[in-house]
Amino acid sequence: MNTFKRIGVFDSGLGGLTVLDAICSANKGLSIVYFGDTARVPYGSRTPETIIHYAEQDVRFLLSKGVEAIVVACGTVSAIALAELRKRFSVPIVGVIEPACDAAAKVTESNHICVIGTEATVHSQAYSDYINRMYPHLNVSGIGCPMFVPLIENGFREDDPITQMIVERYLSPIRNTDIDTLILGCTHYPFLSNVIQKTLPGVRLIDIGVTLSEVVSQTISLPNNISDNFVEYCFSDRETGFKRFDTEHLKNLPNGPIKSINIESF
Amino acid sequence: MNTFKRIGVFDSGLGGLTVLDAICSANKGLSIVYFGDTARVPYGSRTPETIIHYAEQDVRFLLSKGVEAIVVACGTVSAIALAELRKRFSVPIVGVIEPACDAAAKVTESNHICVIGTEATVHSQAYSDYINRMYPHLNVSGIGCPMFVPLIENGFREDDPITQMIVERYLSPIRNTDIDTLILGCTHYPFLSNVIQKTLPGVRLIDIGVTLSEVVSQTISLPNNISDNFVEYCFSDRETGFKRFDTEHLKNLPNGPIKSINIESF
Repeated sequence: MNTFKRIGVFDSGLGGLTVLDAICSANKGLSIVYFGDTARVPYGSRTPETIIHYAEQDVRFLLSKGVEAIVVACGTVSAIALAELRKRFSVPIVGVIEPACDAAAKVTESNHICVIGTEATVHSQAYSDYINRMYPHLNVSGIGCPMFVPLIENGFREDDPITQMIVERYLSPIRNTDIDTLILGCTHYPFLSNVIQKTLPGVRLIDIGVTLSEVVSQTISLPNNISDNFVEYCFSDRETGFKRFDTEHLKNLPNGPIKSINIESF
Repeated sequence: MNTFKRIGVFDSGLGGLTVLDAICSANKGLSIVYFGDTARVPYGSRTPETIIHYAEQDVRFLLSKGVEAIVVACGTVSAIALAELRKRFSVPIVGVIEPACDAAAKVTESNHICVIGTEATVHSQAYSDYINRMYPHLNVSGIGCPMFVPLIENGFREDDPITQMIVERYLSPIRNTDIDTLILGCTHYPFLSNVIQKTLPGVRLIDIGVTLSEVVSQTISLPNNISDNFVEYCFSDRETGFKRFDTEHLKNLPNGPIKSINIESF
């Protein structure tokens, strides 16, 4: 087990705060640099070249802050760029896909799981590649839900009829199928977990932030486990929208300094 | 009247193609470089600093292509960055706001107009500042419609119940008011003009691409007015989504080379 005192967590925008929240809830005494690329969000509709280029800049920024390990708190980057990042940088880098698939494989009884995410994530087949390699007895389906992030970022609540109609549009095709486990393959989606659960009663939801934070807890061992977490919040655009988020889902985030970063220079 | 043979047209993404279409419909013999910043779209939810920084890079790229005048085919950039761009660059730069306001002032009978656009556009008060200065007898209201661009970019058609519900949500508050003229303050919005008109029957819609192209026609005089237009299409990300657009609205665009640009280097 490694000992890391200072880790970096990044996302294309604010969705990664749900992962950060889960990490803070499960760990104490960590020093964390969070980076949200709010000047270039969303990544999910861009090409792999652009996503990899942005992710490399994000990692270089975090390394410049002295982090010892990196958590990719972005479903799209995890799906598209993780292998490339691991090739180019020597620090440990964890992403959301492997822990989420491992968790889904553990709970499915029908052996048919489904992944929802951005267009880029679903198109990448990163989840099905990993599942096919590690759990070849499982079936994997995928559904791109590109309107979920705009809904959440524009403050539409779960009980809004527009939210319900869009969730219904994307997910009703898998209601009453043999799919019993759904991976929420984008860190924004926990904000919609209630309406998703209502749309798909009986299906087990996998929150990629929670499964990732469990892996983080297993791989880091803190010298001092009793002190509070320290988080520095960095954004490429001013932290627009930070407050718009439903803080009910972000109960474990400590206060901390908020900084603006010119990400293009990294 | 100036004589320009080669102009640059740019937008945060693909919406500016509606402006380009209007320009091509009204002018012949132009050589045009179109730039769509698809690697960083959307601009409308970003801060003014970031929007100005991106717009400057966009202009520098177009100048590197030898254009003699620049058309800002983006509602958000026109609202936030036009004054700054005119300070920093000496070529003529036209934006969508002034022509749209002039057109609205000409047709309104109730003297109450409304502008819809991205959050950044409406928040900037660029339209109301210009109207108050030039047409102080007019009232101006504004409504931010941040879900319209994601709807269009994700292929939701005008007759989709979800589209209709979102349009209704944003625009029903001004139905049956004294507003008789609505400026569609974002170059994407013509894709929704039918459903907007149905939601607000009797209200006159101003298409900022059409009013802008009229100004372009008045300010440029072409040496040879009979040849075809030549357009080079440049994008910062690969031209994802180009084909997804409803080409019914883009009938006048000539074929032309499509190129990828590293916009961060400008």
